Amino acid sequence: MSFTYNRTVRFHDTDAAGVVYFANVLVMCHEAYEDSLAQTGINLKTFLSNAAVAVPIIHSSIDFFQPLFCGDKLLINGTPQRLSDSKFEITYRVVDAASPQRHLTTALTRHVCIDTNTRTKIPLPEAMGDWLDHVRWNTDTIG
Amino acid sequence: MSFTYNRTVRFHDTDAAGVVYFANVLVMCHEAYEDSLAQTGINLKTFLSNAAVAVPIIHSSIDFFQPLFCGDKLLINGTPQRLSDSKFEITYRVVDAASPQRHLTTALTRHVCIDTNTRTKIPLPEAMGDWLDHVRWNTDTIG
Amino acid sequence: MSFTYNRTVRFHDTDAAGVVYFANVLVMCHEAYEDSLAQTGINLKTFLSNAAVAVPIIHSSIDFFQPLFCGDKLLINGTPQRLSDSKFEITYRVVDAASPQRHLTTALTRHVCIDTNTRTKIPLPEAMGDWLDHVRWNTDTIG
Amino acid sequence: MSFTYNRTVRFHDTDAAGVVYFANVLVMCHEAYEDSLAQTGINLKTFLSNAAVAVPIIHSSIDFFQPLFCGDKLLINGTPQRLSDSKFEITYRVVDAASPQRHLTTALTRHVCIDTNTRTKIPLPEAMGDWLDHVRWNTDTIG
Repeated sequence: MSFTYNRTVRFHDTDAAGVVYFANVLVMCHEAYEDSLAQTGINLKTFLSNAAVAVPIIHSSIDFFQPLFCGDKLLINGTPQRLSDSKFEITYRVVDAASPQRHLTTALTRHVCIDTNTRTKIPLPEAMGDWLDHVRWNTDTIG
Repeated sequence: MSFTYNRTVRFHDTDAAGVVYFANVLVMCHEAYEDSLAQTGINLKTFLSNAAVAVPIIHSSIDFFQPLFCGDKLLINGTPQRLSDSKFEITYRVVDAASPQRHLTTALTRHVCIDTNTRTKIPLPEAMGDWLDHVRWNTDTIG
Repeated sequence: MSFTYNRTVRFHDTDAAGVVYFANVLVMCHEAYEDSLAQTGINLKTFLSNAAVAVPIIHSSIDFFQPLFCGDKLLINGTPQRLSDSKFEITYRVVDAASPQRHLTTALTRHVCIDTNTRTKIPLPEAMGDWLDHVRWNTDTIG
Repeated sequence: MSFTYNRTVRFHDTDAAGVVYFANVLVMCHEAYEDSLAQTGINLKTFLSNAAVAVPIIHSSIDFFQPLFCGDKLLINGTPQRLSDSKFEITYRVVDAASPQRHLTTALTRHVCIDTNTRTKIPLPEAMGDWLDHVRWNTDTIG
């Protein structure tokens, strides 16, 4: 019940301490989410900038176990879970692509679907439900 | 005929080489432009995300004379110039706030006003004309 | 026992949904931390890129209550707390500068002091202890 | 005499106008450069954060012909050219990966090799010369 994403650490991800700037690891996790959405046929241009419906992040957390360096090849594994009609969360596990047992970071993003005019909760759009199903289906098949 | 903006270099502006990542200097210059717009009363929330009219950058250039480090205090001086009914450009001069004769960077952004539906050139909105006039007026007063 | 920081939301902080990209709020909080360090006389250029000692973030979390828009003026209040000889955390409260009762975001960063060669825990450097004391002293004075 | 790089536009690349923030296109071009360096066996972790030698950008320019949207698949073509013992520049051509005749952006970065202690020009390191040769060789082979 998960998706994966390959990401190479880029120079702009790093800071003067020589490692990835902490908030940029969340950026990489969000890229993995976008990549997974796109793979189920969701048009990100319209989906993420839809005037009527949005799925903003209401909570996020991250734990860092190892520093990440420019050029490092990462494997990001995301596991979404539906929490209610209008909410889901994704747990991310970032590992070294060359040594997947090297666990680098764990992160979480929690999303809620809202009507952007009233900014009140509404049920997740069908495309999102399909995506949650798709991710589950893919995993079952692999399993 | 110019505006000024004070900016401290932040950790996220830097990269693993220990200095500001090159493209982030353009980000700082754009902040100076936004600050100047806001000072003439332009509502950036609506102005920069207006569905019907946009003023995107069509050209930019930048020259780096000195490296910028985390914590450096910068003074950014912007000089806008109208090029036509629909175009203007801004020349930025970034200096060390503590030693303004230390010239760090020069940059330029050229903007064109477009109808976002047709993506064709249209005259600059009145607020933009007012801003160009305001910047000139302020400078004349100071001069 | 806290520090404050004024921050205007910039265009590059936003995304195509029209609001601040979630991870960029953590960037703003880190700026508040840097600003507080600098105010106690810490040289960020050397402190944050020190080859021998670093104070990386090992955990962070954030809750979003309201969307942030380009041009919004924010007040970020940070409250550091020492957790051990080598660890401290900062709780951030982001409010609308014009209406401080409008609570926008709460965030947390937990930091550990390490020897960058061995990447093992070491006691916080004296400058960091001074900073923790300084923040407390300032608050007591204000109170 | 060029290298290519595939890049999908991500949400964090965009701004509230709904398109890619201008300076982020330079970030994507720099990623293409990093990717090309890595392919010739250069270790980016040490190369880009080398204490003794650096190859900073001293000039950059960019022209935007079309807006870029979240989810767009780009093909970035970079053509490096040695300018002197210590300088080279790269011309970037960004096109729509699905319709390569759709020319989206042209950019340029000019680099100079310096001794980071004295910040004076020095000859390009051997690895850089090998990279310039490698890119040429690959193209000749393809041609």
